[in-house]
Amino acid sequence: MSDTPTRHVTVTIRPKVGLRDPEGNAIEHALAALGWQGVTNVHVGRTVSFELPAGDDDTARSEAAEMCSRILANPVIEDFQIEVGGRGV
Amino acid sequence: MSDTPTRHVTVTIRPKVGLRDPEGNAIEHALAALGWQGVTNVHVGRTVSFELPAGDDDTARSEAAEMCSRILANPVIEDFQIEVGGRGV
Repeated sequence: MSDTPTRHVTVTIRPKVGLRDPEGNAIEHALAALGWQGVTNVHVGRTVSFELPAGDDDTARSEAAEMCSRILANPVIEDFQIEVGGRGV
Repeated sequence: MSDTPTRHVTVTIRPKVGLRDPEGNAIEHALAALGWQGVTNVHVGRTVSFELPAGDDDTARSEAAEMCSRILANPVIEDFQIEVGGRGV
């Protein structure tokens, strides 16, 4: 594995559209209390970025998708999006 | 404010480079235990996306930067990145 190049991957995980987002609602209320009354549709997600040994972008993407399904995300209630950003550091 | 167009904004907040990232470390160990030993440099961040009334992208960006400084991020230990994605829904 040590001579396989690495790819930089960023995964963004968000609650599925239409599901409750209590953290987003809390932020929306807090922003309104600070004077940003017009801010709507607040949604919170998380990102996980990493370096992954992979010969090409497609391999990196499919490995990352498997990571999301198995541990990074909860596919029942969350959607994920994978960006492969070329060779890692 | 009701006739001001809205802009879709996504803010990504990450621990500053070099600071401890215990959540990232925990994910790195969990991935290794599942067989992804080669994954390194795992970092966790969060995203906040919203619709903001703003006439143009620059206004949206500066409003979002103020939100980050005041409530969304902790500028002492976190960096943030703002993307303004055109007119919102």
